[in-house]
This record gives sequence, structure tokens and C-alpha cells, in this order.
Amino acid sequence: MNDLNVRKMQKSDIGVVVNLLADDELGRVREDKAKVVHADYFRAFECIDSDVNQYAAIFEINGEAIGCLQITFIPSLSRRGSLRGQIEGVRVSSDFRGKGYGTKMIAWAITKCRDRGCRIVQLTSDKRREHAIQFYENLGFVKSHEGFKLTLNSMLE
Amino acid sequence: MNDLNVRKMQKSDIGVVVNLLADDELGRVREDKAKVVHADYFRAFECIDSDVNQYAAIFEINGEAIGCLQITFIPSLSRRGSLRGQIEGVRVSSDFRGKGYGTKMIAWAITKCRDRGCRIVQLTSDKRREHAIQFYENLGFVKSHEGFKLTLNSMLE
Repeated sequence: MNDLNVRKMQKSDIGVVVNLLADDELGRVREDKAKVVHADYFRAFECIDSDVNQYAAIFEINGEAIGCLQITFIPSLSRRGSLRGQIEGVRVSSDFRGKGYGTKMIAWAITKCRDRGCRIVQLTSDKRREHAIQFYENLGFVKSHEGFKLTLNSMLE
Repeated sequence: MNDLNVRKMQKSDIGVVVNLLADDELGRVREDKAKVVHADYFRAFECIDSDVNQYAAIFEINGEAIGCLQITFIPSLSRRGSLRGQIEGVRVSSDFRGKGYGTKMIAWAITKCRDRGCRIVQLTSDKRREHAIQFYENLGFVKSHEGFKLTLNSMLE
């Protein structure tokens, strides 16, 4: 597992990241996999890249990007002003699943949150992702909360 | 309901906000209700107040703060680079519950997210809060996700 390298996502990674996001039974219908990456992805990347409370990570093996995730650091007043680390957009390339890389990626993210001073790490997972839910439980996460979403408008209009 | 005023949280609100956070069956054991507000709350407020992607709101009636919530705007690559609005720390003073103020507060937050360009509004609610869960479902939120938390260390050491 020492072959897994982590680095900050760069603009040049976006095409690969869109493929990773779409390489998924739920992501397939949510992402725009046109040959030319949609400008919305670049706009979102600029927002993430310029925000000190965001960290988008790329995980690679021998220079090939095989996974990604995003951490958002959220200052909050509740729980005596606890900083929270929130993990989203976790994907492992289908060719590399079931090999323990996801565990290493989340372990890295937890350490990143701890180093930043977070008291809580949080994430949500679609209830249809049974494997992912078992995966996070095995890592010690507690599914104590309901995760609610409200879609404001069609995203691929 | 026209008597409900919304404004950005100020440093001078923190004492009242800590009381709102603690005025709750779960918050009671999580917050530090010392007469002198713990410095951690001020530090957290400074982080929130200086971050353009955070909006902490105070709701008041006749100048009295009766509710609060925090919105975090999260740029994300998934769902074609959708901006998300995340709502946390929703509290209504116990004297003002069951009067429809919570509905007005969340409706205000949804409009704020829509105006900012969010395609998704998300939040989590502790599964023990049966009333809150029904409340969010009534507002159109779908509990499609499991909400996982991992506590990194004791928060009131």
C-alpha cells in the first residue's frame, strides 16, 4: 500500500476526476461525460482551489489517478465551537476497488482533519450504497443521523 | 409571522446563541453554559464571520433572538460542479416552538441558498430527533442518505 500517493487536485486533473465521479452506478446519471469537460466543473474547481477551507485530494499509483475525495472544514458554534471535517465526493476507480485503497484514503482524510484541529469528521452516504455504508461503519463512523437532501432545480438542464 | 426578523449573527449574540444551542435535549450535554462564554465559541465565531462561504443567521421577534441557524456554501465537483448549501445548528427557543417559526427559518435558508446559486440544500438530523425528522420531511427534504459522524476526541475535556 506504500505505492499510494496523495496530492492536492490540480486543474489538469478535472477530466480524470469527472470520469471517476461518473464511474459509479449513481454518478453515471448525474455527471456530464462529454469529451470536452463542461465549464461548470472548472468553475467549481476554481472555487474549491481558492478556498482555504476546502481540500480536494487525488490519490495515485505510479502516477495514475485512481481515487479522489474532497474535505470541507466547517467552523461551527455547536459542540463548543467545534471545527468539523466533512468528506464528500469519495471515488475509487472501478479497476482498483476491493483492494483496500478506500480504507487508506479515508484514513488519510481522518488524519488530515485531526491535524487541522477537527473534533468531528462527518459524511453522508446514499442509503442505496450498501457496501459503502458497511465500509464506513467498519471504519468506526456511526450512522447516528438522517442525511436529508433537497434538490432546488434540475442540475443537467 | 411578519414579526420575524432575520439578520447576520454578531459577536454580541454569542451568549444568546450558546443558550439556544444548549436549550435542547441533546445540546444540553454538548455545550458549555458557564456564565462566561468559553473562548472556543468566540474563536469559532471569528472563523464563521470571516468566511464568505458561511452565513450564521439570527432570527428575532421584537428584538429578542428566538432562533439561529448556520449555512455553509460548499463548492463541489460532483453533480456537474454543483454548489451545495448545508444547514447546521438550527435552534428555536423552547418558548417559541410549535408556532411555525422553524418552518419560516428553513424557508428563509432555502431561499438564501437558491439566491446564491445552490442546486442542493442538505442537512443532517440526529435520528433521535423524531419531530425534527418529520419536520424536514414535511418541508420536502428527502432522507436519502445515512449521516455518519466520527468523534475524534472528547469535546469537553
